[in-house]
Amino acid sequence: MSLVIVGTVAFDAIETPFGKTDKIVGGAATFAGLAASYLYNKVKLVSVIGEDFGDENLGILKSKGIDVEGVEIVKEGKSFFWSGKYHNDMNSRDTLATELNVLADFDPKLPDSYQDCNYLLLGNLTPKVQMTVLNRLQKKPKLVVLDTMNFWMDVALEDLKAVLKKIDVLTINDAEARQLSGEYSLVKGAQVILEMGPKYLIIKKGEHGALLFGEGQIFSAPALPLSDVFDPTGAGDAFAGGFIGYLAKVKSINFTNMKNAVIYGSALASFCVEKFGTEQLQQLSANDIRQRIQGFITLSRFELID
Amino acid sequence: MSLVIVGTVAFDAIETPFGKTDKIVGGAATFAGLAASYLYNKVKLVSVIGEDFGDENLGILKSKGIDVEGVEIVKEGKSFFWSGKYHNDMNSRDTLATELNVLADFDPKLPDSYQDCNYLLLGNLTPKVQMTVLNRLQKKPKLVVLDTMNFWMDVALEDLKAVLKKIDVLTINDAEARQLSGEYSLVKGAQVILEMGPKYLIIKKGEHGALLFGEGQIFSAPALPLSDVFDPTGAGDAFAGGFIGYLAKVKSINFTNMKNAVIYGSALASFCVEKFGTEQLQQLSANDIRQRIQGFITLSRFELID
Repeated sequence: MSLVIVGTVAFDAIETPFGKTDKIVGGAATFAGLAASYLYNKVKLVSVIGEDFGDENLGILKSKGIDVEGVEIVKEGKSFFWSGKYHNDMNSRDTLATELNVLADFDPKLPDSYQDCNYLLLGNLTPKVQMTVLNRLQKKPKLVVLDTMNFWMDVALEDLKAVLKKIDVLTINDAEARQLSGEYSLVKGAQVILEMGPKYLIIKKGEHGALLFGEGQIFSAPALPLSDVFDPTGAGDAFAGGFIGYLAKVKSINFTNMKNAVIYGSALASFCVEKFGTEQLQQLSANDIRQRIQGFITLSRFELID
Repeated sequence: MSLVIVGTVAFDAIETPFGKTDKIVGGAATFAGLAASYLYNKVKLVSVIGEDFGDENLGILKSKGIDVEGVEIVKEGKSFFWSGKYHNDMNSRDTLATELNVLADFDPKLPDSYQDCNYLLLGNLTPKVQMTVLNRLQKKPKLVVLDTMNFWMDVALEDLKAVLKKIDVLTINDAEARQLSGEYSLVKGAQVILEMGPKYLIIKKGEHGALLFGEGQIFSAPALPLSDVFDPTGAGDAFAGGFIGYLAKVKSINFTNMKNAVIYGSALASFCVEKFGTEQLQQLSANDIRQRIQGFITLSRFELID
C-alpha cells in the first residue's frame, strides 16, 4: 500500500517583499511529497526532471524516505523552471518566466512497485497527463485527489471534465470554483462541481482558510493567522500533501477524517509559507506538527451552551 | 442596567444584482438595535431623525421593545439617506448618494434614563460624536464597543485615536485594520491597534468570517456559507449588535464569552444579508437563532485526537 504523488519536481526563482532567491528546489510534487512524508511513510513520486536537477537536490526527497523511482531523469534535459514575483500583499503574483523544458513531453512512468497505490494525488498538471496516470494504474486507488488551476479551465476544460468524473476529491481556490461552476455563491458552486464527479470539494482560500464540501455537509477550516508570510509558493501543494498524507495514515475515509485531513493540510501549508521554498518543510519535527495542530484547535474552538 | 446603541437611524435605497428598493429603513443603529433585541431586552438607541422618518418606521424598533427616547426627531428635518449599488460579487459597492440631512448637526442626547448604561455600542459615526457620548455618560460603562471605517481614518485620524484610548472593543474590517496599523499582517496589525487602546479587536472579513484578538489570544470565527446573499447592507452593524447583545445577556466579559459573542454576531449578520434591508432582522424567532448557532457549531467543529 502506498501514496503516489504525481506532479512537478522543478526549480523556482522567487521574489517577495522580503527577499529574492536564485534557482531553488520547487515543484508541486516536491512540496506535496515533503508535506505527506511527515504523516505517512510510503510516499512515492511520479515526475520528470532534467540532468541539471542533480543528485543533491533529489536527496532532499530521499532523505525523507520518499521513493523517487518514478521520477524520470531526461538525459541532457533541463528541469521545469518557474519564476515569479509576489506583490506586497503576498496574495497576487506575476509570473516572470515559465520554462517547461522536460515537462513539455512528460509521459508519466509508473514503476511496477507503484501498482500498490492506494492513495493517489494528481498534482496540478495538464488533465491529459492526469488521466494517463489513472489509466496506467491496474487497480483503482481507494482515494484519488486532484489539484488543478484556472489555466486548465481556460485551455483544456473538456479534458478536465473527463478526469473530474474519475476522482474523489478536487482541490481548487475560490476564484477557480467560481470559474468552474459559473456560480458566485460557493455553496451553489460546490453543488455544481460535485455533480461533475468528485465526491468531495475543497475550496482553498489562502489566508482565509478552506471549505470542505461533501456528504451534504460543509466544514470551514481556519487559516492560522501568521506574523510573517515569507513565501506563499507551494502552500497549496503542501496542503494537498498534508491532506492526503493524513488520510493515508488513518486509512478510513469519512467526513470526520476528511475534516481532520483539511486541518493537517492547513497546518503543513502554514509551515510552508514561513520560509522560502521548501526550507521549512525539510526540517519539521513531529512536535512542531503536534503544536501547530493544537494551534488550530485553540484558534477555532468555542464552547456555546444555550 | 441597559445596552445603549448610538448610530444612524436612516433611509437606504439599495440596488443589488437581485433587485432594487425604494427608500427603506436602514442605519447602523437600526440594524444593530434589531440584532441586539433578540438577545437582550433593555436596548436603548441614541440617534437623530427627521420628521419624514414617520411613526410607522419608528414602530419597527419599538415593536422589538427598543427604547427610542434618545432618538431625537428634528422638526421639518430630513433623515439621513444613503443610496448604493452592489456589484455582481456583492463584496464591492458604489455609493450613489449620501445626504447627511439632520445627521450633519447631530448632537447626541442622552436621556436621564440612559445613565444606567452598562454596555455601550458606538456605531460608525464621526469620532467626535462618539467621544461626546462617552463624555456625557456619568458612569463609565462596563464595556464600550466602537465601530468605525476607513473614511474616519482618512479625515479624522487624531480624533479617532483619542476615542480609541477610551474603548474596550474595536470592530473594523481587514482593509481598515491594515490601514489603521500600517501592517499587512493582521497579527502584527492587531498588536499595533491593541496598543492604541482597545483591549479587544475584531477584524470582520465578510464571507471569510471574523478574527478576534485580545488577552494574547486569537479566535477565528467562520462565516456561514450562504446560497444567497441578497443584500449585504447592515451586516457589520447586525454583527456588532449581536455581539454586544450577547455580552449584555451573559454579563461576564472574558475571552470565552467574547468568542461566543463573535459567533452570535456572525449569526445575526448571516440573517441580515438574506433579505433586503432590515426585513429578515424583523421576523426572527428564538428557534431560528438557535438553529443558526447550531449551524456555526457544525460548520467549524472537528475532533482531532493525536
